[in-house]
Amino acid sequence: MTKQEVIKAIEGLSERELKAIIQTLNALSIMKENRYPFLGNFLGVTEEKSEQPDEFVCSMPISRQILNPYRIVYGGITATLADMAMGWMLEKRISDKDKFVTLEMNVRYHKAGTGKKLTATARVIHQAQDIWQMACHVHNDRGELIVTATGTFLQLRRNKD
Amino acid sequence: MTKQEVIKAIEGLSERELKAIIQTLNALSIMKENRYPFLGNFLGVTEEKSEQPDEFVCSMPISRQILNPYRIVYGGITATLADMAMGWMLEKRISDKDKFVTLEMNVRYHKAGTGKKLTATARVIHQAQDIWQMACHVHNDRGELIVTATGTFLQLRRNKD
Amino acid sequence: MTKQEVIKAIEGLSERELKAIIQTLNALSIMKENRYPFLGNFLGVTEEKSEQPDEFVCSMPISRQILNPYRIVYGGITATLADMAMGWMLEKRISDKDKFVTLEMNVRYHKAGTGKKLTATARVIHQAQDIWQMACHVHNDRGELIVTATGTFLQLRRNKD
Amino acid sequence: MTKQEVIKAIEGLSERELKAIIQTLNALSIMKENRYPFLGNFLGVTEEKSEQPDEFVCSMPISRQILNPYRIVYGGITATLADMAMGWMLEKRISDKDKFVTLEMNVRYHKAGTGKKLTATARVIHQAQDIWQMACHVHNDRGELIVTATGTFLQLRRNKD
Repeated sequence: MTKQEVIKAIEGLSERELKAIIQTLNALSIMKENRYPFLGNFLGVTEEKSEQPDEFVCSMPISRQILNPYRIVYGGITATLADMAMGWMLEKRISDKDKFVTLEMNVRYHKAGTGKKLTATARVIHQAQDIWQMACHVHNDRGELIVTATGTFLQLRRNKD
Repeated sequence: MTKQEVIKAIEGLSERELKAIIQTLNALSIMKENRYPFLGNFLGVTEEKSEQPDEFVCSMPISRQILNPYRIVYGGITATLADMAMGWMLEKRISDKDKFVTLEMNVRYHKAGTGKKLTATARVIHQAQDIWQMACHVHNDRGELIVTATGTFLQLRRNKD
Repeated sequence: MTKQEVIKAIEGLSERELKAIIQTLNALSIMKENRYPFLGNFLGVTEEKSEQPDEFVCSMPISRQILNPYRIVYGGITATLADMAMGWMLEKRISDKDKFVTLEMNVRYHKAGTGKKLTATARVIHQAQDIWQMACHVHNDRGELIVTATGTFLQLRRNKD
Repeated sequence: MTKQEVIKAIEGLSERELKAIIQTLNALSIMKENRYPFLGNFLGVTEEKSEQPDEFVCSMPISRQILNPYRIVYGGITATLADMAMGWMLEKRISDKDKFVTLEMNVRYHKAGTGKKLTATARVIHQAQDIWQMACHVHNDRGELIVTATGTFLQLRRNKD
């Protein structure tokens, strides 16, 4: 698809469809500033101020683009938000040179993800050596608990020496 | 953002950025045919032929849009693929009138998600009354095991009478 | 083994071995009073006063009989304590006529189970229809977090009418 | 309780109660031979021949002592069997000098544990560095699937040099 074909296709879009394109354009634009990958920017995941020093908070608006056939947020996307929250917190706790991987994650769905946005609050449950055991809960904009997640992360140290 | 502003923004995009717009346009176009929501179409999740009658298989191409800062597929997106595979299989097994919800999901990451595509194979481990206990494994295009997932789903019957 | 053979075997036991027999005898004796099955009585699981109305607390002494080769409580036994705590709480919340089953449980080990006793605190995270989503944390006698567990339970109603 | 008091108490036991004492005596006796801790011997967990080289199999008889109020094996005890099976397999794979810990375990209950014995089959799903991701399924003596479990284990190397 050439740029001209893209533009022609866009001319034929409905208002609702255009919103998905705008969401994509916004993500591409924000990527240039924050240097984060596309997905988090497309989902609109942004850090929020945390009232607790040992917690990390971020939120994600609920757009039509992430709704499942029942018009609630895809469970996998809420899981993605929880994983991002835990990973983002971990990133802040480890050396810039180190990386980390998710070994496993458990996600429990309590209520349907609906409303205007979801807010994820991550915390470290326990850390020993290179193992980080973390938890995250996700609330909707009415303060209701949507998801609780727990995960095990492995810190990969650049220099073991 | 008006349609004219969108088109102007697109004119300034690089080749690489344009790919994200094309991916979005494709999703919008396919949605009209298959009536599935945006996300699965954006991720390009498509059903594959299964060799086993008791398994459901679907795959997802690995685009730049779903890569994390380490250039591997976001763990949450692989979880989304697994959840979609299990849900899609379940949808085929229950009455059209019924719905279902994911009660919880456990996702185990064995290898980094890289390559051209990921393939998810779902199966029912056990079903009793309205509880479906399912499992899914995800392989990369070299046949390596990337993720194993297990989930508990609740079937919501339209008429309990 | 006849009763006479049992008595003869007991005469040859060391002080340490005798303790396992005493623990068994105690369990058999308490069973007559509380009508609970052997295992919980053998493990010495007893209800504790809870300071929070929405929590259920029980504890288990750490005897030599539940230690693994590293001299820490078997992970499975701490899981058993957590499952019993969640189940016991649930039992108090549902009708006497109803039963329940554990659909799945996730247990996360943070510290080795050592010291004199373990205390489990259970709570209901969310309940809808017949599904109970519960959590439990286990502390040692120094107040350190040993285990966090989460579980999904299904209430089986005697009369659906 | 002195040895004389123990013997007196045993004289008053019913046939059924005596079985719990015999089970305890057997465990104490077998401990001297196999040098394994009390619990596994009390539960009667024994290694079975595996037909697959990459699997480890062990079984546990179902005695009255491990039944819950519904007369099915306590979920925590089936979890203990699964954890022991995975740990036992791991023990055979690592150096005698190394230890390991269970980081987390997920246990899914498919059918009630009833019958004469439960058989657990463990396998390694993936191993990288010091992380072992394992799985285990438990069948009853009619070959029905009772439990599927997955766990993450950390190998603790004695000498990192």
